[in-house]
Amino acid sequence: MPSRQQLIQQIKQKKSFLCVGLDTDIEKIPRFLLDFDDPVFEFNRQIINATHDLCVSYKPNSAFYESRGVKGLQSLAKTWQHLPAETLNIIDAKRGDLGNTTDMYAKAFFDQAASGVSFDAITLSPYMGTDSVTPYLKYDGKWIIVLGLTSNPGSKDFQYLVNKGGYLYEEVVKKAVTWAGADRIMFVVGATKSTEFTNIRKYAPDNFLLVPGVGAQGGSLADVCQYGMNSDCGLIVNASRSIIYASNERDFADAARAEAIKLQQEMKVELEKAGVI
Amino acid sequence: MPSRQQLIQQIKQKKSFLCVGLDTDIEKIPRFLLDFDDPVFEFNRQIINATHDLCVSYKPNSAFYESRGVKGLQSLAKTWQHLPAETLNIIDAKRGDLGNTTDMYAKAFFDQAASGVSFDAITLSPYMGTDSVTPYLKYDGKWIIVLGLTSNPGSKDFQYLVNKGGYLYEEVVKKAVTWAGADRIMFVVGATKSTEFTNIRKYAPDNFLLVPGVGAQGGSLADVCQYGMNSDCGLIVNASRSIIYASNERDFADAARAEAIKLQQEMKVELEKAGVI
Repeated sequence: MPSRQQLIQQIKQKKSFLCVGLDTDIEKIPRFLLDFDDPVFEFNRQIINATHDLCVSYKPNSAFYESRGVKGLQSLAKTWQHLPAETLNIIDAKRGDLGNTTDMYAKAFFDQAASGVSFDAITLSPYMGTDSVTPYLKYDGKWIIVLGLTSNPGSKDFQYLVNKGGYLYEEVVKKAVTWAGADRIMFVVGATKSTEFTNIRKYAPDNFLLVPGVGAQGGSLADVCQYGMNSDCGLIVNASRSIIYASNERDFADAARAEAIKLQQEMKVELEKAGVI
Repeated sequence: MPSRQQLIQQIKQKKSFLCVGLDTDIEKIPRFLLDFDDPVFEFNRQIINATHDLCVSYKPNSAFYESRGVKGLQSLAKTWQHLPAETLNIIDAKRGDLGNTTDMYAKAFFDQAASGVSFDAITLSPYMGTDSVTPYLKYDGKWIIVLGLTSNPGSKDFQYLVNKGGYLYEEVVKKAVTWAGADRIMFVVGATKSTEFTNIRKYAPDNFLLVPGVGAQGGSLADVCQYGMNSDCGLIVNASRSIIYASNERDFADAARAEAIKLQQEMKVELEKAGVI
């Protein structure tokens, strides 16, 4: 479980701020994997083995595992066990509930003895406010990643509502930075809205921002870096489908590696341009 | 899976609009149950058997099952199988994610072939907007229950932010009623804020409102009914801890039944007062 300093160090060493999203859909993985006992785990295992020197984070999307019930949770637990110790291992769960329920979600994702997994970080929805978030912070060293601005069409419906203090997503960031420091809290910021990074950086200059939507979802890495990067990098950029489904044949892991290298090379240029490395 | 009309009919027959919340915590159930193969399921089974003629809905809280990993999901699937066909069986999951991920959550909770369970309704967080909600509506006859106003302390942080159109929770309700009719959409409305029902009824006169927070969380049933009830009842009031943990001994199911009867009797009075029955 990397601390903020360890994460920064890893970014500098690997010259990468890539997160590989493990949105593993059993209907989309190469057919030959269906002969394995646990095809989803085998897919993830090979993807992880092929990319771990190129990325600083992995992010399984909980929904893809939950959709298969008990079998899916077994694949998730095996995947978690196979994740490298040095990467920031995020469960993309977007939970948000009140106090005593949040304690249960924290066990589900942070307490190996209870649930079989213990991720380093979890994504959270802020709608229910402070007590839907703070119970996760009781777990020493674990991170929370609060939804700020998302990149989906529906983000316009509420996140851009204007209050006296600004947009709703700005209110969320302003409040969330009071919950803990930049060593515990990150924000999800959708990459298709690059100019909005400036707004978010006003309130969260030091926090890492988890950026989905580069790659298959179409955001521009250069724009994200121009507006979102800080002197520590301060960005983790996720790519899921563009990497993990680069090939649907026996060479899928090599193809995933090739895609990860492409992104890592672009990231290296951005890190140099910004003087981080 | 009850339709709106079937739900209304059931309320009139049972003279109850009670939902029993199955927030089953293995650390809180009677100790003697630990001798069973699946103590959580055995607890739920006895609670359901003791209350099904007094309530119109059950609501397992997903977090409590997820906290125990694979074992917890197995208990949830067995519990789902034991739920009566006539009651509205809600999974309290408060999910909210973008399009393709939402499809996966819909499978997780609505598609028995995929995940082992198929609840009638799911609670959803609206922060990510339209496309985080509408994929669930593809499942014929299933309900979505959108978080409007919650009753936890943190609800003040964002739900009460003022936009030009009103409070954020009002914007949520106004938008959500455009997604589908009152036969598919309900709202979660926290019972400790009774006067706010008037605001919500302005935009959602016909929708059922799922009201947590009566009982252990301290809301008043009379206030909820005064401000929230419509001519079809239009309310489902949840009680969890006050019913399921009424006793911690071998008589827990009888004690739960006694608590459920108390609430049902109060509900009968309210239904009569409002002329619903």
